[in-house]
Amino acid sequence: MGERDLLMIPGPTNVDPMVLRSMARPTISHTSTTFASVFKETVTDLGRIFKTKGIVLPLAGTGTLGAEVALSNIIEPGDKVLSISGGYFGDRLAEIAGNLGANMDKVDVPWGSAARIENIERKLSETAYKAMLVVHVDTSTGVANPMKELGSLARAKGVLFVVDSVCSMGGMDVQVDDWGINVCFTGSQKALAAPPGIAVISFDSKALEVREKRRTSPSSYYGDIKRWLPILQEPTKYFATPAVNMFYALRESCKMILSEGLEERFKRHAKLASAFRAGLKGMGLQLLCEDAVASNTLTVAFHPKGVSDAEFRKSMAEDYGVVIAGGLGPLKDKAFRVGHMGNVNRSDILATLSAIEGSLGKQAYQFQPGSGVSTANRSLTATV
Amino acid sequence: MGERDLLMIPGPTNVDPMVLRSMARPTISHTSTTFASVFKETVTDLGRIFKTKGIVLPLAGTGTLGAEVALSNIIEPGDKVLSISGGYFGDRLAEIAGNLGANMDKVDVPWGSAARIENIERKLSETAYKAMLVVHVDTSTGVANPMKELGSLARAKGVLFVVDSVCSMGGMDVQVDDWGINVCFTGSQKALAAPPGIAVISFDSKALEVREKRRTSPSSYYGDIKRWLPILQEPTKYFATPAVNMFYALRESCKMILSEGLEERFKRHAKLASAFRAGLKGMGLQLLCEDAVASNTLTVAFHPKGVSDAEFRKSMAEDYGVVIAGGLGPLKDKAFRVGHMGNVNRSDILATLSAIEGSLGKQAYQFQPGSGVSTANRSLTATV
Repeated sequence: MGERDLLMIPGPTNVDPMVLRSMARPTISHTSTTFASVFKETVTDLGRIFKTKGIVLPLAGTGTLGAEVALSNIIEPGDKVLSISGGYFGDRLAEIAGNLGANMDKVDVPWGSAARIENIERKLSETAYKAMLVVHVDTSTGVANPMKELGSLARAKGVLFVVDSVCSMGGMDVQVDDWGINVCFTGSQKALAAPPGIAVISFDSKALEVREKRRTSPSSYYGDIKRWLPILQEPTKYFATPAVNMFYALRESCKMILSEGLEERFKRHAKLASAFRAGLKGMGLQLLCEDAVASNTLTVAFHPKGVSDAEFRKSMAEDYGVVIAGGLGPLKDKAFRVGHMGNVNRSDILATLSAIEGSLGKQAYQFQPGSGVSTANRSLTATV
Repeated sequence: MGERDLLMIPGPTNVDPMVLRSMARPTISHTSTTFASVFKETVTDLGRIFKTKGIVLPLAGTGTLGAEVALSNIIEPGDKVLSISGGYFGDRLAEIAGNLGANMDKVDVPWGSAARIENIERKLSETAYKAMLVVHVDTSTGVANPMKELGSLARAKGVLFVVDSVCSMGGMDVQVDDWGINVCFTGSQKALAAPPGIAVISFDSKALEVREKRRTSPSSYYGDIKRWLPILQEPTKYFATPAVNMFYALRESCKMILSEGLEERFKRHAKLASAFRAGLKGMGLQLLCEDAVASNTLTVAFHPKGVSDAEFRKSMAEDYGVVIAGGLGPLKDKAFRVGHMGNVNRSDILATLSAIEGSLGKQAYQFQPGSGVSTANRSLTATV
């Protein structure tokens, strides 16, 4: 892809030039007071975005490392753990927990559906689990799970609530403290709108206590929150070298997020997501999930019969300069995924829909030209 | 510290503006063919720098994560492992292996000395170890271990040879294949002269075979080389999102390294290191190690009696704009560490020595003013 192309995959997203430029600043000493300020500001701002008074650790790595760090601190071999999975990343979370020796139980939610509270409640009543793992928005489906309700359940049952917010944090409301999330993780490259390269993991006091009281040491030495606590207190101390220039970017990005205002930002995501879904439906496409459970950060739509995914996405990129993603797992070749998060704006939504129309138009699919763009445009200009 | 200050700590180092600027390029899709080229070029260049035909994995993370990834692929609980440690990072390597369940044996080398081959040979003859862990240059001491000889020993005894080259790779010769190094790791922020944020780990065919045949799965899911092999073959595939902008930097940095020429680069490091040591000795300072075992990437010197480390380094930074590091572990407050690797040049060496003279001059230490700079200058201008 070219650098002028529109990046509409579900992460990384289009990074603001101000954030990009901040990375070009000279690398300074990771233990200097100057960098300590950068580190502290970033951690403070991330705490606001996570809506937590707990510990927030930004760590060189990706969302997958974030999952591993989240789980390896609180899970010990043999622990009973319940995973709720309705997509590729829910499965991965369960796999990582299993790899750490957890005794896994899994609630399989059909791809495209959200977890049903009554099912989870039954599971939690049947067995005493140590932890429950949930993906807020699975990047493979675009479904948003009912986190507040799941959090209440977990709290009522005394089960640790571990949340993958990779595809929601910064674009949708995630109330870590109020929803009783004990451990929450995300990556820098999604709705936080920075480049990939930093994982962020939060731990509340309950999670820290579990870490403190464990019988075995966490398998991840690098991600052991206990080793990082002194550095989070005083970042001029050393444990492992923070990714200095990536911190420049993440700090800048957090500042932009808070300057827009979290609630304003969530509204923007909701409005654009709604318009995008309306546009897709306007051209007759079938979406993977109902609007009621749809996330505001990404949308998954089925290809109409006879449409080739490869040709479609090639045309999107080459003829229109709009880069989107293919389906994951069972949806490979059957669906496409569009990310609309971070710095996404109205122009991006309309340009993407126009490119989808154009690229579909080249294949064996009949629809009213302009129907996608015009439906979305109506939605965007409607006064709520 | 200010951005115009000279960064003379043992990593991160002064990053070239061209490398910094490359990070400000737009973040593109991690699975695009454009990024796949960036990924492949970086991996190919890293292979040249590592001097290996084996697998080279660049991974969002730091040197400590690199150590964990290196070890977690080949070590299983109960494995007999020998660690050779003469510094802070040797101890850390042993600690990480122990954390993975290895049955650890340790050869403690006095800080400031190199490992003695006859001692290691005796250890290897007494016990059948699965792996031997060695730090090439420990960032806490500046001592360079005799890697070629240790490699021959390991090969002769059929022991896996795992090397921490964090503080040597890119600044000193590390012949991964010829020295029989089975697993080697480094970080982006030392002599590779990129910002911190990427760990690089190499695996030869023997190490891959050990990974393949293990009974348990590696504790690190994120760093499981088996999961990365398909991506190294075809980087448009997905496992975990590479740190796109960090790759821009590392690729640029690798290109600069190879364009200078590895052997030329090693010579430059040797010449500057030698001049720096001569300068320190010229002003009467005592170095931690003998020239015969000194690395070319960093030097550790003792403070003269009565000199305060805190005041000295404060003066270095604030009066002269030269940032250096304090002693680690038992050398805290007793010694200082200066990194001279990556893009270091003659001016940096002279400026650093001049600042050391000035900062020492303010404290209770008598020496001939100018003796450090002039000795180093003679060494730099001498025709070999």
